[in-house]
Formats: sequence, structure tokens, C-alpha cells
Amino acid sequence: MTRLRIIVAGAGGRMGVANIAAVAAHDGVELVGALDRAGSAAIGKDAGTLAGLDALGVPVSDDAATLLDQADAIIDFTAPAASVALAQQAAEKGLVHIIGTTGCTEADEAAIAAAGAAGARIVKSGNFSPGMVALAVLVEKAARALADYDVEVLEMHHNKKVDAPSGTALMLGEAAARGRNISLKDNAVRVRDGHTGPREAGTIGFATLRGGNVIGDHMVILAGQSERIELNHRAQDRTIYANGAVKAALWAAGQRPGLYSMADVLGLTD
Amino acid sequence: MTRLRIIVAGAGGRMGVANIAAVAAHDGVELVGALDRAGSAAIGKDAGTLAGLDALGVPVSDDAATLLDQADAIIDFTAPAASVALAQQAAEKGLVHIIGTTGCTEADEAAIAAAGAAGARIVKSGNFSPGMVALAVLVEKAARALADYDVEVLEMHHNKKVDAPSGTALMLGEAAARGRNISLKDNAVRVRDGHTGPREAGTIGFATLRGGNVIGDHMVILAGQSERIELNHRAQDRTIYANGAVKAALWAAGQRPGLYSMADVLGLTD
Amino acid sequence: MTRLRIIVAGAGGRMGVANIAAVAAHDGVELVGALDRAGSAAIGKDAGTLAGLDALGVPVSDDAATLLDQADAIIDFTAPAASVALAQQAAEKGLVHIIGTTGCTEADEAAIAAAGAAGARIVKSGNFSPGMVALAVLVEKAARALADYDVEVLEMHHNKKVDAPSGTALMLGEAAARGRNISLKDNAVRVRDGHTGPREAGTIGFATLRGGNVIGDHMVILAGQSERIELNHRAQDRTIYANGAVKAALWAAGQRPGLYSMADVLGLTD
Amino acid sequence: MTRLRIIVAGAGGRMGVANIAAVAAHDGVELVGALDRAGSAAIGKDAGTLAGLDALGVPVSDDAATLLDQADAIIDFTAPAASVALAQQAAEKGLVHIIGTTGCTEADEAAIAAAGAAGARIVKSGNFSPGMVALAVLVEKAARALADYDVEVLEMHHNKKVDAPSGTALMLGEAAARGRNISLKDNAVRVRDGHTGPREAGTIGFATLRGGNVIGDHMVILAGQSERIELNHRAQDRTIYANGAVKAALWAAGQRPGLYSMADVLGLTD
Repeated sequence: MTRLRIIVAGAGGRMGVANIAAVAAHDGVELVGALDRAGSAAIGKDAGTLAGLDALGVPVSDDAATLLDQADAIIDFTAPAASVALAQQAAEKGLVHIIGTTGCTEADEAAIAAAGAAGARIVKSGNFSPGMVALAVLVEKAARALADYDVEVLEMHHNKKVDAPSGTALMLGEAAARGRNISLKDNAVRVRDGHTGPREAGTIGFATLRGGNVIGDHMVILAGQSERIELNHRAQDRTIYANGAVKAALWAAGQRPGLYSMADVLGLTD
Repeated sequence: MTRLRIIVAGAGGRMGVANIAAVAAHDGVELVGALDRAGSAAIGKDAGTLAGLDALGVPVSDDAATLLDQADAIIDFTAPAASVALAQQAAEKGLVHIIGTTGCTEADEAAIAAAGAAGARIVKSGNFSPGMVALAVLVEKAARALADYDVEVLEMHHNKKVDAPSGTALMLGEAAARGRNISLKDNAVRVRDGHTGPREAGTIGFATLRGGNVIGDHMVILAGQSERIELNHRAQDRTIYANGAVKAALWAAGQRPGLYSMADVLGLTD
Repeated sequence: MTRLRIIVAGAGGRMGVANIAAVAAHDGVELVGALDRAGSAAIGKDAGTLAGLDALGVPVSDDAATLLDQADAIIDFTAPAASVALAQQAAEKGLVHIIGTTGCTEADEAAIAAAGAAGARIVKSGNFSPGMVALAVLVEKAARALADYDVEVLEMHHNKKVDAPSGTALMLGEAAARGRNISLKDNAVRVRDGHTGPREAGTIGFATLRGGNVIGDHMVILAGQSERIELNHRAQDRTIYANGAVKAALWAAGQRPGLYSMADVLGLTD
Repeated sequence: MTRLRIIVAGAGGRMGVANIAAVAAHDGVELVGALDRAGSAAIGKDAGTLAGLDALGVPVSDDAATLLDQADAIIDFTAPAASVALAQQAAEKGLVHIIGTTGCTEADEAAIAAAGAAGARIVKSGNFSPGMVALAVLVEKAARALADYDVEVLEMHHNKKVDAPSGTALMLGEAAARGRNISLKDNAVRVRDGHTGPREAGTIGFATLRGGNVIGDHMVILAGQSERIELNHRAQDRTIYANGAVKAALWAAGQRPGLYSMADVLGLTD
């Protein structure tokens, strides 16, 4: 079987090197190129070396057009403008384009969807961890099915984290709110201290733990009369996102052009 | 709003009294009759008294035909022959029939389905806990989506329980197996001790804890590369089954005749 | 073996009936009297009936002196003034006195200690659950041993609870603070929301969950570099306090006069 | 402040490189030598390079005598004969000797104790994770205090592990048995399947989960009437043992000669 030829964009960044390492570690794929923006300190360095591996013989380049001619897929956790431009090139060449970029405007999203319509096989997600993507789908279903159960979202992260609740906890809260057809913003209870009064029905509560170097644990509780279900995700390290991106690339290679989500990759879309 | 008029069958039994208590406790329903087999010691006793409540003015009777004429719904956790006979009567009168009876043969199941086709509004389930029914659906979806993750099923029950794993743990294992299109029987690993060798991919492991008077906790773990999801159910007491049966009756009253599952009641059927 | 003859004070109250039921359910003890204050609606009623049991032939009385002459032990979750008076009577008669009363002033505490010195066998505690008392001792030891680990306290209670964190969560936080020789008040972090900055070393964090009819779960986490310990208590129902009081009475019957804690009962005092 | 000068023995082994990395990462210590047996392939290589770090300028040597003259402490997870010999040298020079070696005979243990009596500051442990050592102490105390609670030990490890239960689970079971003054061997229940009958009082149950690349989670449950305590340890990665060894070395440097345990290091010995 021929291996899927992958280019990693943003090769000098934190997620770039994680994506390089994940491609290097997986069967069925090979790293054929590494991109970074012109002027980046990574240009010319070996992608493997950047990722803390043995050299892979793949120097980082800023020449996207040349690299894309030799590739089947791009894994891209970069910036909105770069991702839109890569999506358009992916459309022209019919490539797989895995997009983990955040901060896209509606116009960016529309341009990416257009690239999908024009021939690219795009998977775009705010989270590439298969377990977390699955959990969010399960949370939405559970919140809909157990419509009168109290929903609580708990997370624990390391003691360096500077904000609360985590973005992922809020994403899980959004999933629960979607299952209830309510607005998270209007129904979130983000702190409890002192005299709170009884819990208001229909709200979604958040609680935050911090300690050690915990990578990230999340729990969504649905508590009803005399029973609870708890839906947990535990991350051991940050390789899960890059591994999920490689999994998405392999899946997308077998799909028709279009714009997909990680829920599609996992077969979780109704 | 008129209240749903409910008869509890098997009124003298353990689940019968639980169902009487649940009907008595819920809004929107009223207990209008209590059935038991001819010759039962419960005949003639007040249903409320049997359930440890104040008297409800509802004596237990063995005359199903008379009671059914005054009722909208039957809650029935009895025996196969009795449930089949009640289903046929429910069909004639267009009643709701909630069946928690276990041990039905294929012929019994066919007769119950026929009663649904002939006019009864039947909800039949092996488990009426909304949380557990939802969990089983989530487990099946997760096992399908995370197809290469290791599935483990853990349960804890009180120290009087004489078998392992629990029937519910096996039911959750079946849900996972269904998500994988495999046979649980051929893939279950029910004990581990001593030199086991590495875990065989595709198997479904079971582990059992016993202690105190724990009502019943279940956990299904899906463990992949550097992440896990854990799907838990915790039962506080045994009222959850009877409460779920009442919930099912209220739901079924608004449905067309037919045979439904608790997953239908919860809107969890695709 | 002769059974320990127990009187329950405050027999008409919520904890009183729980204590009556616990005495009735335990081997080795018998209920010989039930006290309530003069004028209480419970006076003259049967203690068993009050507790939702069959009648026990023990009418509630307001005549402490007469009852105490027939008893070995008093279980008393009432009010400070009543507890101080009972302690003095227990001292005269050499009785066991189990005190779960809260809200005592320093003068009350001194009077109770004096009663212990004068001949009563007193066990006084803010919490009679053996598991929770043990947990608090373990938390103190763990916080001392793992002196640089981050301590977090999490609790979940039912949706009717009107304050946060629970008194028990704060008690566990106090245990951790004692292990660290710090003040909880000065080091507690009771809410986290929005931009919090990194976790400050040495603080003790709290987080609160609310939902369903959860009786009470508590967790203390100690998180260090790449490892965590979690010390949990799960309560299934509220019988644990009354059962612990009976256990304390049986233990105290074999001790010399004095003032003891539940940690003494459990052999957890160094 | 002068830094503690540490030699790592067994430098070419799996724990050796972990110990090198831990010394390199900690404040207050410095790596001044790396030992391996004559003929090891590691001899002459740089210790840092072996550990996947930048070179540290410390070549691996087989000349213990010379290295020990320049050191304050040895960290030694090697083999019984080597550890006994090093302990005797540590005694002569008054060094700190941290021993993680397993498989020692009673004669080896006696020789190591004699070295402690003769001037070495030895910390010997089967497990250097501070959290796990603390947990074992807590388990023993809890099992003693809650003498009639059912004890269960649960563990989860990665899918490559070939035996069950884990050595650490058995060690926790031993701690519980010690708290009860019973023999683990005579009271362990290692499998449950099919018709087991009710749980026998006084036994210690084990349950095993396997999946993904889980490093190691352990839970000890003590379940009584209507309450449970759960004492958990979660390991994120295997650095906890080497970090604990460095912590032990720093502690031992301030102690009088003798043989200590990790419980001593943590102040957990009564």
C-alpha cells in the first residue's frame, strides 16, 4: 500500500513539531515536506531535528507551491490567513487539508468551506482528540435524552494554567446547551461560594481544579433522581491532538471533496 | 390536566410495591388499581400500605378485566405469561403497557410485538433507569467511533451479591460489542490473574468490585493512545427503575400504538 | 452478653429519629428511653413510630433523671445547653454520653470536658461518619507528608443545598491546613473564574458541584509532579452519622471516663 | 548553598537514565559521576546523552572507588550484589545511598542494614513515588481504623502489561492486610466470575483493568454501611520514581547514618 504523503505547515511551531512527530510515528503516512512562513528561524532546518527526533531528511521550506505538488495531504495548525490560502491551493490540487487553526472569522470559514466545495478534502476542528470529540457528541445526546437532569462540568489542569474554566470545559458546556436548545451564556453558573440558594433548574454549572502538572481531565455530570451519569475524558499528554490530525488525514483521503468535522471522521454525525 | 390512570400489576412483589410508591410520588399520574395473581397474599390489602405508605384506598385485586376498564396504563414487572395476557388486553382497550418483565421467550416477544401492532402502546425494557439506558446508547456510539480503543467494563455492588459480573455490566459489554459488530461472548475477558500476557486487541474486559451496601456503580472505559474516556453510572437507590417506568407511561400515552424501547422514550433512537 | 442500654435525646428531631432507628437496627444495644424537651409534640409518642418503624414500646419522655437511672448511654444531637446539662448528669452516673450537638461555645466545651473529667465517658464530634472522620485524619497526614503538593477540595451535593462549599469540605480543608501548619482562612481559594493567573503555591482550592439528590461526595486531591493522590468519601444515605454514634457508644462503654473524639474511637489518634 | 554531588549507578539501564535526567532537572543537586558495570556498552558514553539530554560532560565509568571520593550521594537501582558492595563503600565514606534495587535476599538486607549502622545514610524502598508511598501508609491506617469495612484494590495499566494484579496493587493489599493484622495471601480474592456467593468478610479483593498506554492508576476502596472511602493514586509518567529518589537523597543528606524508608523521608513513620 502506498503511504499518504503529508506536509506539515507551521513546522517551527509547538503544534507543528507535534504534528511532525505524529506523522513520523504512524504507519501508512510519510512526511514529504515541512512548511513555515518566509523568514522563520525554522527554514532550512531538518523537520525531524526540530521535533526532537533523528533527522528525517526533510528541510523546512517556505515554498508551498513546490511542496504541495509532491503531497497528498497538509496538516495545518497555523493562522487564519495561511490556512485560507492553503485551502485554496488544496482545492486546486484536490488535496487533503487538515485544519486545526483557531481564530477564523466568518469570512475565513466561508472561504474554507468554498475550498471544500471546489475540490479540497478538508477536516476542520477546534479539537482533534478523538476521545474529546466523541465525548462532546455524547454529552449533547445525554443532555437531550436526560432533559431534566442537572448538568455540571468539572475540569482539572496543571497549576500554571491562568484561566478558568478551560476552553474545553466551555466547549463541553456548549455541547450540553445544544442538547437542551438553550444558550450556554444565559444558563452557565461559573462560581458558587457562600449563600448560593438552591441550584436553579436548567442551569449548567462549572467547577475548576488546578494542581501539579495535570495535562487535562474533564468530567460532565448529569444528575437526576437517585442516579448520575459521569462522562469523563482524561488526557495523558498532548500527543492526542497531533495523532488525531493524522487519523483525520488518513480518513479524508478516502472521502469525496468537502468540508468535514472530526465528528464525521469518527462516524458520529447522524 | 387529567392525570394518567395507572394500574400496577404484580402489586405484592418487590418491584410492584416500588412501582406503587413511584406512581404515588409523581405528578400527572394516579394509582387507580393494583393487580396480583389469584391466591396471592396481597389480594384485598391496600396498595399504599403494601408499599409502606399511608393507605391509598386501592385494594389489590385479581380481576384484571374490571380494573383495566378504568385505567389508561399498566405498569407490569411480573412474569412472561402474565405480561403476554396483559398485552393482549391492553391492545383491545388501546392502553399503555409498560413491561419490565424478564425471561420472555421469542414466542412471548412476538406476542408482545403483535399486541403493539394491534393497538397497545407498549414500552418494554430490561432496564428502566433513564441514566443506564442512556449510558448503554452512549457506550455503543463510543465503541463504534473509537474503534481501536480498548474497552473495559467495571462494576461495583454490595457484598451480598452472589454473581459476577452484574447483568448490567454484561448489558453494557453487549452495547460495546454491538458498536464494534462483534460477539461479546467471543471477545469477553472476564478474569485476569497471574501471567496474562499483553491485552489482546478487540477484546472487552470485565472487572468486579464488591463491598458495603453499594447499590450499583458501573463504568465503561475506552482507552486509546494517551487518552481515555470513562462513561459512568452511579445508582443511589432502587427507585430509579420504578421512576423510569412512570416516565415511560407518561411518554407512551402520547404515542401511536406500537412496541417501544426506553431508548425511544429518551429520544435516543436514531 | 448484656446489651448496652441507650437513651436517645432530642427524640422528636431529625437526628433523633435517625438515632432511634440506628439503635433499633444494631446488635448489642437496646433503646431503653427517648427524651425530648418538655412541651415537645413528641412527648408520649412511641419512639419506634416516630422513626417510621414498628412501635418499640418506648414512649418519649421529658423526665431525664428517671430515664438515666435505667441507662448505660445517651446519644444526644440536641442543643448546647441541653448537652451540657446531660453531660453533668452523665458524669454523676458514670454514663456514656455521645454528643453530636453543634454550636457549642468555649464555655460549653469546657463544661463538657469537665464532665468527662468528673466521670462521664464522652465522645463528642462534629461528624460521626467513621469514613469521613478517617478521611480527615488521612488528609492531614497526606498534606503534611506531601508538603509541596497542591491541595484541592471538591464536593458534590444535591440541588437543594443553599451554601457552598459544604461544611464538610471546609472541615477537610482545615485538616489539610493543619497538616501544613497554615491557616485555611488565609490560604483558601474558593472561586476561580476568568483570568485567575497561575495557581499560587501553598493555597488550598475548593470546587463545588450541585445536582440531583446526591447525598454528599467529597474528594481531596494532592497533585504533585506527574502524580496525584485522591482521597474520596462517598455517602449513600444519612444513616452513617447515627450508625457512627452507636458505634461510638459501644466503644466508649469500654473506656475510662474522659472526653474522646471519633478519631479516638477509630484508633486514629497518635 | 553547595549542591549535593550525586553519582548514578547503573547509568546505562532504564532507571539509570531516568535517574540521570532527574538529577539534571532538580535544583540543589548536581551529577558528578555515572557508574556502570565493567564491560557495559555505556562505559565512556556521556551520561546526559544516554538520558536523551544535552551532553553533561560526565562520562560513564566502571571505577566506583574514584567516583565515590568526589560524591555526597549515590542513586542506585541496580542488582543486589552491586547494591551491597556500594552500601559498604558508602558506609566507609559516610555517603548517602539511595537504593531502589529489588530482589534482595535476607542476607542482602542484613548487609545493607549493617552498612547503615556503620556510617551510610541509606534510604531503601521498593517504590520511590512519594504519592504511592504516602498512599500505602494511608491505606494501612484506614484498614485498621475501619476494621469492618470491605477492602478492594483496583488497578489500571497499559495494554502491554503481562501480569495481574500489578506489583503495586499487591503492595497496597499488603498494606491493608498489615492494618488488619492478617495475611494477604490467605485473604486475597483475586478473581470473581460466575456464581461467586456473597463476599466473605475480611477478604481483600483485587480487580484489574488494562487499556491504552495508561501509566498506572491504583485505587483502594473501603466500603462500609452506606459510605465508602476511595484512596487513589494516578501516575502520569515514570519520572515520579527518579524524582522521589532525588528527593530522598536531599533528605538523607541531613540525617544521621542509618537505614531509612521512603515513609521516613515523608515523615510518615509514627
